[in-house]
Amino acid sequence: MDTRNTPENDLIRRIRSSGAGNPRRDSAVQLGIGDDAALFSPRRGYETILTCDWFLEGTHFLRDKHPADSLGWKCLARAVSDIAAMGGEPRCFLLSLALPETHAGRWLDEFLSGLRRVARKFECPLAGGDTTRRDEILMNVTVVGEVRSSRALLRSGARPGDIIYVSGRLGEAELGLQRFRSVRRIAKGDARLRKHLYPEPRIGLGRWLSHYGMATSMIDLSDGLSTDLLRLCAASGVGARLEASRIPTANKSQRIGVKNADALDLALNGGDDYELLFTVRPSKTKRVPRAFQGVPLTAIGEITRDRKLKLVRVSGHETNLLPGGWDPFKTAYPSATSTASR
Amino acid sequence: MDTRNTPENDLIRRIRSSGAGNPRRDSAVQLGIGDDAALFSPRRGYETILTCDWFLEGTHFLRDKHPADSLGWKCLARAVSDIAAMGGEPRCFLLSLALPETHAGRWLDEFLSGLRRVARKFECPLAGGDTTRRDEILMNVTVVGEVRSSRALLRSGARPGDIIYVSGRLGEAELGLQRFRSVRRIAKGDARLRKHLYPEPRIGLGRWLSHYGMATSMIDLSDGLSTDLLRLCAASGVGARLEASRIPTANKSQRIGVKNADALDLALNGGDDYELLFTVRPSKTKRVPRAFQGVPLTAIGEITRDRKLKLVRVSGHETNLLPGGWDPFKTAYPSATSTASR
Repeated sequence: MDTRNTPENDLIRRIRSSGAGNPRRDSAVQLGIGDDAALFSPRRGYETILTCDWFLEGTHFLRDKHPADSLGWKCLARAVSDIAAMGGEPRCFLLSLALPETHAGRWLDEFLSGLRRVARKFECPLAGGDTTRRDEILMNVTVVGEVRSSRALLRSGARPGDIIYVSGRLGEAELGLQRFRSVRRIAKGDARLRKHLYPEPRIGLGRWLSHYGMATSMIDLSDGLSTDLLRLCAASGVGARLEASRIPTANKSQRIGVKNADALDLALNGGDDYELLFTVRPSKTKRVPRAFQGVPLTAIGEITRDRKLKLVRVSGHETNLLPGGWDPFKTAYPSATSTASR
Repeated sequence: MDTRNTPENDLIRRIRSSGAGNPRRDSAVQLGIGDDAALFSPRRGYETILTCDWFLEGTHFLRDKHPADSLGWKCLARAVSDIAAMGGEPRCFLLSLALPETHAGRWLDEFLSGLRRVARKFECPLAGGDTTRRDEILMNVTVVGEVRSSRALLRSGARPGDIIYVSGRLGEAELGLQRFRSVRRIAKGDARLRKHLYPEPRIGLGRWLSHYGMATSMIDLSDGLSTDLLRLCAASGVGARLEASRIPTANKSQRIGVKNADALDLALNGGDDYELLFTVRPSKTKRVPRAFQGVPLTAIGEITRDRKLKLVRVSGHETNLLPGGWDPFKTAYPSATSTASR
């Protein structure tokens, strides 16, 4: 019996055979693509983490400019970052994909190639999803993760006096986006585009902080430090004071021609970094290493009782820190040309 | 500290306070909307079921014609149907919602009202999601369900000789869609529109079949009997022979002016019924009741070794049954005007 009779079946077959769904033998995914739903075997003593993320043409990427394989990578990597932000590890994902017919050939192959690479790197196989036809490319990714019961790191656990840390350097993805906009042809190997095209969620760091009970709260930096810190503080019912001089801005090789003040602005308000922001009790800060798996960890300020966000400038002058990060209800991708409004 | 500073935060707050996310005290959802991800406590001895579904303006509904509360109901009900099709019960869901600013007021309130009703009816609270701004209304719903380990009913379990059953009457949703297209104003109480606007997934039946090991395979009828039966047969490596005279077509009160032959065509190829199609070993058919919770269960044919789909017409003549149901890659909502092509 020929079941290749419908374009939808054909698309599902190609996704299934891409390798993104090839679970290892000990995988949690018992039944993958091809039934009404996927089956997942939860581990005893663990809670399940659930997250989903839009990834939409025009809003999050440009169809004709972003390399298809970078979209395959990024659609999963950014959703996995939410699992990292809870201190968990990803176990499997669902992909909802809407595509024009024109993109069901070579574009899809390259997209699935990027998806396979990131799924294997983070041991997070494709378990199922939904496909449909659409004039625009639309994606939604659901990631299922696990964390030991009562070990999840929430946004709400920060207390006055806690020290605020970030991983990595902030603003590099935004710089990459600016470069992406300014060049006509995208060279996949361009190091300055790497963090914009192929972000790396900090799963190992998140798990380590959760496992050793090091952090009191955590969030991933997807929309920008100023915006995401506000969310963490609001959830915890606290405020924060950041020291501008300590915020790790983009590496000098990444920001040729960018002034220090602009680099700080990028670090405060640039989106898409997918670094982790976490808080640590003062008594535990000695146990926080200067780097984890090669990624620097930097203390950038402290949590305050006063429910305000403050920034101590390099001059010593203290100012209010306003959320200046990415808000999808304010600006969409193509029209967002200035850093400040994104 | 004012956290109402961004439209996105405001939208999330309104969704959170809609009541769709109010889990009961014994709920599996430990942490809902407002963190990086949701936390879910799996039950011991159960597997987790995962499914996601697109629900898109233009493809699946018409923004200006479908009542917003019916979209809230249907977006979850149709995804929950995939959980029913595995013999499981829904536990919680994630909603990804993209909206124009014009729809963030009254439309959203009505949408959330329908969503709350269906979430409460099926005890499936909102656990999280993602929101963004978009010119078109886009939704993606992920439902998490549970089923006792090794009790899930798959598409792949049908064996030659098994008797094929369906729940309910087929084609009523398609008739409702035709009526929906033909009337200018939608009366929410119109019984003939009920199954198109407010479908009811057969969770109780699915659980009963799974619990008592009654069925060898199962699928839900979302795209039409001819198309979904083909999927079940392909997964099981078998064929099927249906008897046209036994297929339960739309109730007479629902199909005023529709000929018998057309009613059969609607039953074979109409989408959106969300009834269950399942197979039972001949030795167990005596234990299948004629109705379950008021919904008729009807034997409509049998599974064959020969990998073909056959239809025995009322005349006794046997013909090939071709998949004529909904394929999103063939037709989109507004352009699909004939039953046969949808």
